[in-house]
Amino acid sequence: MERLSIELGERSYPILIGPGLLDSVPVLDEAVHARDVLVVTNDTVAPLYLERMLRGLAGRRVEHVALPDGERHKTLGTLERVLDALVEHRMNRDACIAALGGGVVGDIAGFAAACYQRGVDYVQVPTTLLAQVDSSVGGKTGVNHPGGKNLIGAFHQPRAVISDTDTLATLPPRELRAGLAEVIKAALVADPGFLDWIEANLEALLSLEPGAVARAIRRSCEIKAAIVAEDEREHGRRALLNLGHTFGHAIETAAGYGEWLHGEAVAAGLVMAADLSRRLGWIDAADLARVKSLLARAGLPVVAPPIGAGRALALMGLDKKVLAGRIRLVLLRRVGEGVVSGDYPADALEATLVAHFGEAA
Amino acid sequence: MERLSIELGERSYPILIGPGLLDSVPVLDEAVHARDVLVVTNDTVAPLYLERMLRGLAGRRVEHVALPDGERHKTLGTLERVLDALVEHRMNRDACIAALGGGVVGDIAGFAAACYQRGVDYVQVPTTLLAQVDSSVGGKTGVNHPGGKNLIGAFHQPRAVISDTDTLATLPPRELRAGLAEVIKAALVADPGFLDWIEANLEALLSLEPGAVARAIRRSCEIKAAIVAEDEREHGRRALLNLGHTFGHAIETAAGYGEWLHGEAVAAGLVMAADLSRRLGWIDAADLARVKSLLARAGLPVVAPPIGAGRALALMGLDKKVLAGRIRLVLLRRVGEGVVSGDYPADALEATLVAHFGEAA
Repeated sequence: MERLSIELGERSYPILIGPGLLDSVPVLDEAVHARDVLVVTNDTVAPLYLERMLRGLAGRRVEHVALPDGERHKTLGTLERVLDALVEHRMNRDACIAALGGGVVGDIAGFAAACYQRGVDYVQVPTTLLAQVDSSVGGKTGVNHPGGKNLIGAFHQPRAVISDTDTLATLPPRELRAGLAEVIKAALVADPGFLDWIEANLEALLSLEPGAVARAIRRSCEIKAAIVAEDEREHGRRALLNLGHTFGHAIETAAGYGEWLHGEAVAAGLVMAADLSRRLGWIDAADLARVKSLLARAGLPVVAPPIGAGRALALMGLDKKVLAGRIRLVLLRRVGEGVVSGDYPADALEATLVAHFGEAA
Repeated sequence: MERLSIELGERSYPILIGPGLLDSVPVLDEAVHARDVLVVTNDTVAPLYLERMLRGLAGRRVEHVALPDGERHKTLGTLERVLDALVEHRMNRDACIAALGGGVVGDIAGFAAACYQRGVDYVQVPTTLLAQVDSSVGGKTGVNHPGGKNLIGAFHQPRAVISDTDTLATLPPRELRAGLAEVIKAALVADPGFLDWIEANLEALLSLEPGAVARAIRRSCEIKAAIVAEDEREHGRRALLNLGHTFGHAIETAAGYGEWLHGEAVAAGLVMAADLSRRLGWIDAADLARVKSLLARAGLPVVAPPIGAGRALALMGLDKKVLAGRIRLVLLRRVGEGVVSGDYPADALEATLVAHFGEAA
């Protein structure tokens, strides 16, 4: 088992990573101190893992609620179902919520924990690679609003994160790869040595070799934690974690959410960020090829859809007049070192957009 | 103008108290730093004060939303109306919410501020005496759930509180008196000198003499702030603020919410807490008479409704078997000094309940 401590003073918490953790009594005893527990899960994950987790929690009063699966259910209405369950089962301030599922379950359950009785404990038990590397660190919880993603929420740190790598065996391969995009992003932003390691161990990761997977999750969480620690409330350096995301956001939106998985759009966005960094002379053609090659080996898309540079700009919240220096992008100063910069020529960004999205549609 | 600073490190904020503040440009400039403001108010207050406040905020982009008036609208559904307005008016993270109204408006608007984009600024502009002395300090925000009051919410401190005492002129006299119950409570818990002052200035308070009103609000906020400062997250001493509230809660619930105003139930509850303190020998009969007399002079009820001691116990969440020492009550060690205690004989509590609520119904 890998173990990592997220240092946040009084709110510090452990992340435990490895196979067989979901029903490990010592692991659950370390993570869940409450006598009363509400497990929040979804209709897909419940048949697979709920029983095991309930066994591991035996001896406590445990209730559960299974939400419909999918990002489109990340709403205030679904949040209310969790709050209703907390009230119905008379959970008090000392109760603990356990989020068993992917990022959506974690975000909703964490937000319910943030606002039920003005804050109760929660524990994350992420069952997707994306949630294990991304949602485990940072304390962001919340739901979507019809007017935008994640517009309603809270910063609320979990008491512990239990990442059982066995759960990845039932994850659709496409989602596993999308999770790897965030692992690769973490390496690109902050750790050239980790990038070397991923390149050398990609087959082990794709075949879910437990030691390799746990190490990749651990290092990704460490990188995110180090960046977040400098910027818990998201004003500056935390933006580094968005490498590839501004471009990716345009892809996700143009395609309609759900067509491209988030990680897939990020992968294509990483290539574009690398491309722009090359145009600025910060990395060279070989570096760009290296980024592209690793993502392709991971089975991720490296070519953006031909939505046209003009439309992409609009989706990035920009128009040409306010382009230069008005949007801060995350770029690569070198491979393994991200930088947040608004200091690039408009021409270079436009060239990248045209090269990847095509001329204005 | 009276001025008080609530010291909470980075989250410290001023409370400004006095007449004519609502449309005072210097006051609003000190309180509201944002360029974009959403004023949250209700259907009763909007016709009275919204225009004035909008004038005071001139030069900013100001939108507003008026909620239906009343505690029964303190729901997730009403919260959603505020969130919808924030999205509709494209308020961003630098926007500020201004809560113009009583405690319900403040609780909902504050909670919306806590969770919109994971936290934006808000300013309270309380227009009831209760909200001016009670909701201005403590950082509690939230809404009710069908299963219980204030079950969903967050701790979120305002950037400033502007208590314009002119607004009390349009407050129904019954609500003014209910607010005074909390002022008297603050004095009973923590400041015998303030109690003397209230006794000497009660007529000035009831006739809304501005200097007296501002001083009473200021001192009540100071007392609450001092207690909350020791216990921001409500684990120990903060319970002192609940003097009279456990008994009052039984009255409110038995009568159906709305029949007795909260402050009225608290007033009758204060008499009961004093009565029990006298039975314990902590205060004497003259002290009890003094408490009763002051509340009566303020036009507040000092006699509980005859709901029966048995029913009252049940409404207090108790039965006889688990009575002694199992519920911590706020009592008076002496007049002007509250104490949280579970150390009283069951007989004494029962005698108080029977004397005030009558024999078991």
